[in-house]
Order: sequence, then C-alpha cells, then structure tokens
Amino acid sequence: MKPNIKNIAVLTSGGDAPGMNACIRAVVRTGIYHGKNMFGAVQGYQGLINNNIIPMNARSVSNILHMGGTILKTARCLEFKEDAGMEIAFKNLQEKEIDGLVVIGGDGTFTGAKRFGEKFGINVIGVPGTIDNDLYGSDFTLGYDTAINTVIEAIDKIRDTADSHDRLFFVEVMGRDSGCIALRSAIASGAEAVLLPERETSLKELITKLKAGASTKKSSSIVIVSEGNKYGGAYDIAKAVKRKFTHYDTKVTILGHLQRGGSPSGFDRILGSRLGFAATNALIAGESMKMVGLKGNKIGLTSLSEALSGLGNYKLEDDLLEMTHVLSI
Amino acid sequence: MKPNIKNIAVLTSGGDAPGMNACIRAVVRTGIYHGKNMFGAVQGYQGLINNNIIPMNARSVSNILHMGGTILKTARCLEFKEDAGMEIAFKNLQEKEIDGLVVIGGDGTFTGAKRFGEKFGINVIGVPGTIDNDLYGSDFTLGYDTAINTVIEAIDKIRDTADSHDRLFFVEVMGRDSGCIALRSAIASGAEAVLLPERETSLKELITKLKAGASTKKSSSIVIVSEGNKYGGAYDIAKAVKRKFTHYDTKVTILGHLQRGGSPSGFDRILGSRLGFAATNALIAGESMKMVGLKGNKIGLTSLSEALSGLGNYKLEDDLLEMTHVLSI
Amino acid sequence: MKPNIKNIAVLTSGGDAPGMNACIRAVVRTGIYHGKNMFGAVQGYQGLINNNIIPMNARSVSNILHMGGTILKTARCLEFKEDAGMEIAFKNLQEKEIDGLVVIGGDGTFTGAKRFGEKFGINVIGVPGTIDNDLYGSDFTLGYDTAINTVIEAIDKIRDTADSHDRLFFVEVMGRDSGCIALRSAIASGAEAVLLPERETSLKELITKLKAGASTKKSSSIVIVSEGNKYGGAYDIAKAVKRKFTHYDTKVTILGHLQRGGSPSGFDRILGSRLGFAATNALIAGESMKMVGLKGNKIGLTSLSEALSGLGNYKLEDDLLEMTHVLSI
Amino acid sequence: MKPNIKNIAVLTSGGDAPGMNACIRAVVRTGIYHGKNMFGAVQGYQGLINNNIIPMNARSVSNILHMGGTILKTARCLEFKEDAGMEIAFKNLQEKEIDGLVVIGGDGTFTGAKRFGEKFGINVIGVPGTIDNDLYGSDFTLGYDTAINTVIEAIDKIRDTADSHDRLFFVEVMGRDSGCIALRSAIASGAEAVLLPERETSLKELITKLKAGASTKKSSSIVIVSEGNKYGGAYDIAKAVKRKFTHYDTKVTILGHLQRGGSPSGFDRILGSRLGFAATNALIAGESMKMVGLKGNKIGLTSLSEALSGLGNYKLEDDLLEMTHVLSI
Repeated sequence: MKPNIKNIAVLTSGGDAPGMNACIRAVVRTGIYHGKNMFGAVQGYQGLINNNIIPMNARSVSNILHMGGTILKTARCLEFKEDAGMEIAFKNLQEKEIDGLVVIGGDGTFTGAKRFGEKFGINVIGVPGTIDNDLYGSDFTLGYDTAINTVIEAIDKIRDTADSHDRLFFVEVMGRDSGCIALRSAIASGAEAVLLPERETSLKELITKLKAGASTKKSSSIVIVSEGNKYGGAYDIAKAVKRKFTHYDTKVTILGHLQRGGSPSGFDRILGSRLGFAATNALIAGESMKMVGLKGNKIGLTSLSEALSGLGNYKLEDDLLEMTHVLSI
Repeated sequence: MKPNIKNIAVLTSGGDAPGMNACIRAVVRTGIYHGKNMFGAVQGYQGLINNNIIPMNARSVSNILHMGGTILKTARCLEFKEDAGMEIAFKNLQEKEIDGLVVIGGDGTFTGAKRFGEKFGINVIGVPGTIDNDLYGSDFTLGYDTAINTVIEAIDKIRDTADSHDRLFFVEVMGRDSGCIALRSAIASGAEAVLLPERETSLKELITKLKAGASTKKSSSIVIVSEGNKYGGAYDIAKAVKRKFTHYDTKVTILGHLQRGGSPSGFDRILGSRLGFAATNALIAGESMKMVGLKGNKIGLTSLSEALSGLGNYKLEDDLLEMTHVLSI
Repeated sequence: MKPNIKNIAVLTSGGDAPGMNACIRAVVRTGIYHGKNMFGAVQGYQGLINNNIIPMNARSVSNILHMGGTILKTARCLEFKEDAGMEIAFKNLQEKEIDGLVVIGGDGTFTGAKRFGEKFGINVIGVPGTIDNDLYGSDFTLGYDTAINTVIEAIDKIRDTADSHDRLFFVEVMGRDSGCIALRSAIASGAEAVLLPERETSLKELITKLKAGASTKKSSSIVIVSEGNKYGGAYDIAKAVKRKFTHYDTKVTILGHLQRGGSPSGFDRILGSRLGFAATNALIAGESMKMVGLKGNKIGLTSLSEALSGLGNYKLEDDLLEMTHVLSI
Repeated sequence: MKPNIKNIAVLTSGGDAPGMNACIRAVVRTGIYHGKNMFGAVQGYQGLINNNIIPMNARSVSNILHMGGTILKTARCLEFKEDAGMEIAFKNLQEKEIDGLVVIGGDGTFTGAKRFGEKFGINVIGVPGTIDNDLYGSDFTLGYDTAINTVIEAIDKIRDTADSHDRLFFVEVMGRDSGCIALRSAIASGAEAVLLPERETSLKELITKLKAGASTKKSSSIVIVSEGNKYGGAYDIAKAVKRKFTHYDTKVTILGHLQRGGSPSGFDRILGSRLGFAATNALIAGESMKMVGLKGNKIGLTSLSEALSGLGNYKLEDDLLEMTHVLSI
C-alpha cells in the first residue's frame, strides 16, 4: 500500500555539481504543486543531524535554476555513518513529520540514504548528482555535461596561445579513479594526447606521439592529464617529459575546483529539472529506495542497491579512446 | 560485395549548425587514417555542380573543432533538384574518382542525397546536422544542444534585468514548425510561459497565467515565443498582451540567427566527432544510403528512407510541457 | 564644517546596469568599515517613499559582486518628482536618522538627487550607473563596458553563420538618442556598416557600401542599427534594403534588454567597486551634491550640476566613426 | 622631411596577448586604405631573419578580429639580439623594399625595435601588446583587460563551489614581477586575500585574515596568489597554510597559459583597432621610433626610449590594495 507522503525534505550531499539548484527547485515546486509541505536540509546529512531543516516554498527557489553550486550547501558528514547520528537525524525528521526524502549526490550519498531508509523505513529517492558520471542507472549524472564544457572552454583559450613556439601544454583535470572527464574533454578539445587512470600510456609512447605530431606539422600540442594517472599530476609529467624532450617549453594548467562550478549547461538544467520532478512524483506515488535516472531520453527508476552495485563503475569507453587516436593525427 | 572506396568527399548543406566543423574534421581525419583521399565540396551540392571540390588533408581541418559555422560553407541549391544538375555533379565526382560521399545536414539535404545515391549508385552516408532536432534515427541532431545553450544564456541576461518593475519580456526563438527549441529553452531558463506552434495557448490563458504569477510574487515574467506560433512573432504578441494588460511594460528580444552560431558545446563537439568518425567508417565498411545517429549512448545506422519517413517529425514532448507548468509556479 | 555622517542609505534607480551590485557592495562595506550604519532602499526612490529601507551589513552583500541586475531593484518613480513625495521620503529617512545617501543611476536619478539634496539638505553623492555612457565627469559609466561585450558576443555568433550565402544581417542595439553602443560595437565586432541616431546614412549609401564589400569578396555583411536611427528599427531597414537589393536574404536580430544584463566584466566590477568606495568615503569626508567618476585612471568628483549640464551629452566620436570606414574595407 | 613610406610590415613578438589580431587587422587595412603594400612577418623577428615575410591584403585579415592568439605567431628570437641577425633581417626587408615596420609586443620587443631602428634607419612604430600592463605611455596595454576577465570568470566558478565546507581555495595567476593581474583580479572577484610580488604578506597575517573572515561568517575563502610572490606558487602556500590551519581543506588551481588566450574583450578589440590604426597612420605621417598608446580616451605617441625607461614599471596601486582590504570584510 502506498504511503501517504505529506512532508518532504530535500538535501544535497558530497561534492557539489552544476544543476543541483535546478534539481532542488524542481523538487520543491513539484511537491508544492501537489500540496506537500517542503523542507530543505542545509549541508546535507549534517543538516538532518543539526536540525538545520528549513521550510521551503515556491519563492525559496526563485532565480536559482541557472546558478552553480547548491543553495542548500553540501558537507561530508562522518556522524551520519554512525547509528547514533542516524538516530538523531531520524528524530529531527519525525519531529517535523517529514516522511519523504530526496537526496541529491553520488555513491557516498546513496550509501547513506540506503542504510537510513532500511533502518528507519523512511521513504527515500536518490538523484544522481556528481560530475563523475559513475552511477549505474543513468546515462548521464547531473553536472557531467557542464564540467566537460568548463574544461573545453579552458583548453580553447590555451589553444589560442599554443599555436606557436615548440610548446607543450599539460592540463590536469578531475578524475582520481576514472578518466571519464579526461577522455571526453580530450575528444571535445582536440587534445593531442590524454593520460588516464585506466591506461598505462608510458612516457615513451607519449613522446613518440608528440614527435609524430611535430613531424606532420601540428601547430600545437595539448596533453590532458587525469589527476589519477599513474605518473602523478601534470607537473610531474611535464618535468619528466621535459627531461627527455629538452627543447620543448612545457607549460602546466591545473583546473582544480573550477570544474565543479559554473552556471549549468542547458543539458544539466533540463536533466536536473526532470530528475527533481520525477523524484518527487516517485515519492508521492509511493516509491522508495530508488534512484531516478536518464535512460535514453526517458526518466527511469533503478533500485539504490543496483545503482550502488558497481555495475555503474565507469568502463573506459574504448571506442572513444581509439577515436581520439584517429582524430588527433 | 563491399565497394572498395578510395576517394571520399564531404559537404555541409542547408542551415548551418554548431558542430559541423567537428564533424568535417572527423570525416577527413578518419578517411586519411585509413589511407583514403579526402575532398571537401564548398557550399554543399552547389560545390559539386560548380566543381568546387578541394582536396583535404589532416592539416586542412586543424583548429576548426571549436568553431561555429562550417568551413565548407553551405548553400541552398535549386539546380541539384534537377536531373541536369545532378548529372553535372556526378560527372565532377567521377572525374576525381570520388566514390564515397558524406553529407551533413537536415531533411532537405538527405532528400537530395537519397535521390543522388539511387540515381548514380554513389555511396552516400548522411549525418544529421541541424539545430531543429527533427530527424528520425538520432536522439539528438548536431547543433541542437548548442542552440539551447545559446538561447538560455541570452535569457539569463534578460532575467538579470527582469527582476524589478511590472515587466514582461518576450523572447522569440527559432522554430517555424516545431517548438523543440522553445520548449527545452523554457525549461532550462525557467520561463514563465511558452508559446509553441503545436499548441494553441490563447492569449487569455497566457494573461491568466501571468496574473497568477504576479499574485504569487514572482519577481519577473519571461515568455518564450516560437517564431511559428499562431499569433505571429514576439512583437505581435507583446502588442496584443499590452492592449489587455495595460499597466505592464512589455519588452521584446528577437534572437534570430545568433541561435545558429557560437562555439559548439562539448556535447556537440563529441557528437560531431563520433558521427563523422562513424560515417566514414561506415562508407569504408561498404555501407550506403544510411544515416548515422546517436541512439542512447551508441552510434547506430538508419536508412535514409526511414530517416526521412516523417517518423522523426518532432512530437511535442507532452511530459516536458506539463513539467514546465508545474515548475514555473 | 564637516557633517558627522552616521547612517547611510544606498539605492539604485533608472535602468539597471551591470556593475550596480559591485557598487552596492562597496558602498555598504566601506560604510561598515568606518563604523556607519548602512541601509538599502528597495526600488530606488520608491523605496524611500514606501519606507522600504532595509538595514544592511557586510554579509547582506556577500556573493553579489559578480551578479547582473541590482539586488536593491530599480523603479521609475513619478511620486518623487512631486514635493509631496520628496517630503515623505525625507521623513522616512529622518525617522531612521539617515543623513547620507548614495544614488546609483543615470541623469534622471541625478536630477532627483540634486533637487532632493537642495530641498532638504541631506548629503548626497551620485554614482554614474548606466549603459549609455552619457554623463559628464566620468570617462566611462558603470555598465557600458559589459554592454559592449554582450553585444559583440552576440554578433560573433551571427558572424559564424553569416559566412556563406548572399546574406545580410541587421542587428538592432540600444541607443535611442546616442550611437555610443552602436559605434563601439561596430568597431569591436567588425561590422560592415552602422546606422546611428547622429548621422543620416542614406539607404543608398548603405547599399553602395554593401555592394563594394561584395565586390571585394567580403564573406559576410553585418549592419548594426541603433534603435534611434531615423529609418526606424532593424526590421524596417531590412525591408527597405530588401526592396532595392532583392537577391539578398536579410535576417534580423533585436538584442533588446539582454544588453542590460549579464555578469559584469572585470572592468565594470572594478569600476563599480572603486566608485562605491569613493562615494562612501566622500560622504564621510563631508562631501555632498557631487558625482564620483573615473577620469583617466583616477576617481574624481564633479558637481551634480555639472554632471547634468549637458556637457556630458555623448558627442559622436568622429575619429572612431571614420576608423570604422577604414577598417571595414 | 617626411619619408615616403611605401611598403609596411607588421609583426607580433614576445608573449601573445588577446587583441593582437584586432591590431594586425587594423594595421593591414589602414595601410591598404592608404595605398601601401602590406606584409606580415611570421613568428616575429624570426620571420624577418628567415625571410618569412608574406604579402597581406584586406582579406588576409578577415574574420580574425575576435580571435585570441596571433595569426602571425610569435617567437623569442635570440639571433635578433646579435648584429649578424639584425643585418640579415634588414637585408630581407630591403629586398622587398619594406621601409616601415609596426611591432606589437612588450618591452623586449621594443628594445629590439629601438636598436634595429637606430642601426638601420628603418621607420618603426611600436604597439604595446602584453597582458602585463607594464609599459609607460599607455594607460592600458593590449590584452590586459581580457586577461582580467579570464581570471575572474575562472574564480566565479570556484566561488560557486567554495560556498560550503571549511574550504580555502588558492588560485595562482600570472605575474612574476608584478601583481597587476593579481590585484585587479582580486578586486573584481571579491577574493578574500591576495599575495603579491611587491608585498610581503606573511603567512601569519594571511591566516589572521582568514580567521577573521571565518568569525564574521564569510561563506568562502579565495586567495589569489601571484606566481612571483615570495612564498612560491599556490601549492607551496596551500601546504604552508594547511600545516598551521589543519582543519581547513585547501584546494589549488593554477590558471597558467589560459590567461593569455580567449577571444578578446570589447575593450581590447577597440584598443587593438585604435592602436593599429594609429600606428600605421603615424608611420605614413613620417613618425618613427615611437610607441602608440592610450592616454585617457585618446591615442598618443611616446618615444620608445621613454616607453622603455622604466617609468612604466608597474607601481602597485596602493589605493586599490587598501580598497581590497576594506571590501573583503
């Protein structure tokens, strides 16, 4: 039998991602449209524990659709990993008679949500919000598209100035365990080479490739380095290459956290809106312990167990990697 | 038996779309990688007729991935609709021993390609390049994602200034027959209302909606108008609303052709690269009379006949339209 | 003898301009730094009359520096033109013991400020905030630089698509009485021609120029039209040209109010910060009835009388106009 | 008596800067307008020595106004510092009867130009093109405005994500000897602190400032680090702060060469156009051994000797530095 959800809280947790605000707005307005009382927990699970749970109305989410970051803030919350913390959180929700929860975040967020739901029977729906695109059950996670756009806009500027001298540019992008941002950015920016956590491109291969480019008169050389590749960061690679390739002038850019920010792309605004809309509707329809996701051009549901099963671990797209070799000739 | 393609020409035709250059680059480099001789026809089919068919190498397409427009230019070509024109085009291709053709464009382009292929037996692969997202066989057409981003960046700026006074902003976007740009832009920009070719929102309904927004203290009102809606352009609507809603100050923006331009988004650069790569590989593998398209996260083939069958006519996404009503409360 | 200013209010009035928020932030924080109580009047002079005057602290202006529009909103206020309205405004200020006022706006704003200061002896400093760059005493007004950037980004996109066909693009920009935005945008975007309120370029001359461009194989033609030129808006011109130049395909873009929005440029953020800082410091130093302005690279003071004297009426920069003719060959 | 200049060459040298293409375009078209033969030397002085001097016409500079980088490329050229190199360069110019030279670059470029002009009597005009804003005789150098915009757009994105956690963001910007980019970027981005080559802000002071911000509930902390500050790069500082301020999570971004790229701002496009126009007109009018520069809103001439005199060494703008302290409370 369907629960009769009355009061719903939304929170964002883990690393923030562009489009989270679009999603918060959609959750809140969809709930209000259906006559629910809506709340936002500030700083993720920490807000549940600290009882920092604020009422939200349609105007609370005005003019946030286009903003990066999250108006509800995020935090890592160690306390929520303990039973004691979860119990306080649940008590605070009970006090406000909140019986539905939408959590926006990545796998850490979902792991917490799953345990919380199982333990206290509260209805929970997850929204995949992370720039790392690594959850099973959604072709794209919220923020990934914007992150790629941010990286390539940066590289476009570097290419303006790359086009002269014997210069090698190394650009370090996010991705400790996964090259998903690095690989797609390499394609979209026409980088000459890419170093990924999943592949052991030796420095020798890299240098061979760069020399081949030079011999066919490529006018510039940009190498994208995923922070999690085996040679260390872009600085380390640049030094190693410089040692073997001395006449090259090597330059380094570390994009860092700017990859998490920026006004969300149209794609992420629409995705955030659809996911938030669907998440709230799912809660109202009596669903729980599920994640909403984009499958093809439709929104579908996946159980949190499956989403967390590791099936979604990013598999390096080999066809795309091969394509980068062909297209960077 | 597979044809043994040796020489391949690529052209862009119809309205230009961001990402066409990424696609041209991918076609040319993939062909060269496989040892083919590559050519580009300038100004679409007109270039075939005028024998304006230039050899291209890997460096011909350097530094174009990030550029809007098309380095091969486009044109409408009435002569190519006639048998006489097609024959000249074929003769010019024969002279250069070009036996494969990649055409990037929309339905008009494909109609020509299909007739040309049927008539002369030349191998043809189509790439869906149009901001209108209206071809069967690809979830997204090349340029659509960038066009949405362009529209919402414009509306974001308008919203900055909308947030005061009793002001109504009307923004006219492309879409003579289809509201696909208008509807997705409305979601992504948080517009208060949208007028589509497919729906007869009466002015009375629009005014009712705007009044409702005012009563809930919405701080601004932006209405997106598809150029093909039944009331005429944004100016006409603005005047009509002003007559019934006199204390409102109505302001109009007509985005026009800037929607076709701009550096392609990451999405469109990757899509253009993948489609161009796949189109050339398909030709080399002996395919013909097909269109390459994005299906889910894979590239697939559809026959030109199907692509043109009208199955792809944009069906207004009713679920998204309903969502805009809910989210703009 | 210097007044001992204790409480200061800031307001924005007239058309909004990018950089106003940077200026509000600077006014508020500078006052607080010097131990003053700070207030903001909402919706300009209307806020004074409606007693919508809110206390502001250092955190009230956090994270607004980069935002377009104005958090204090603007409004046209007819009541403030009447003695009765001014008296209510003054009473409301007196009640809160506000003895200093910073007004950010254009000439209408300053006219009101001057009368208000003269009538009630309240200390007033003006900040030139308008995209029209038409105040005497400041080389640049706040928002002008951003508006130019906004226009040229739009035209860059149009140029992507202009580069083919026999196409003529008409882009209408703001400037009812002054061509300052049109002229500088024409230079910065490499437009082929510009129609200004100050000059009577006949259609015949325009067509002659466009034909000359065609004969030297210019690949595209963009004409910038100031909304205040004598032939009407861009639509009217496009129609008139089309009648005489029939094989041309003419396309129109009306930028409208998006020219007022957008995140302020670095130039405007620095200018807004410096002007706000200087305005508050001037009030505290006992100045009144002055406008702060940028002169060379220094901030200077000009009396409101002079600023409003008409000396600042934009004189069309003839040298720049001549330059556009030379550079668009 | 005025020389009768017939043939003019233009080159870009040293670090490239946004707006150089706008300037090249203006030089070439102004010369052609006045009936001169125009040439471009590829890769700066190296192009003179290698006789890589290409004829340019009005179409050679079409569609470059908005592009970053320089179509003529730049290079450092050690040979041009030797008499032997200069003699070859002069011989190559003589052969083409080139009697006027426009050099776009920074102080290194001008030092070479001055010696070359003195030694061989060739007419030379310099254009200040460098993002470092460090030449006497021009209020702004070409590229500085765009570089500031680039930096603040990056920091805006970081701020989106900064607004949560106890996080400290360090952003390293260009400026080995001068804090001009760091200081203006700090103002324009609302950074909490800035480390400059010209000032010895001790780490202790920095930490004190950051703690003060935390106590007034500033929601984020961004520190801009000029690459030439005494503590080393942003990584070193981040580590040092982390040691003393352990509960903070410190994050680093190194912007690197993307600061030299990007489409030039309106300001830089107009400045580049005006300077190129003025440089060519000055050569034609018989001027030599001068630099064109922006003074107030006018273009003026300064002798190369003065421009190089060190008068232009950036003096840290103390009033602006003080202002950053006040505005970041």
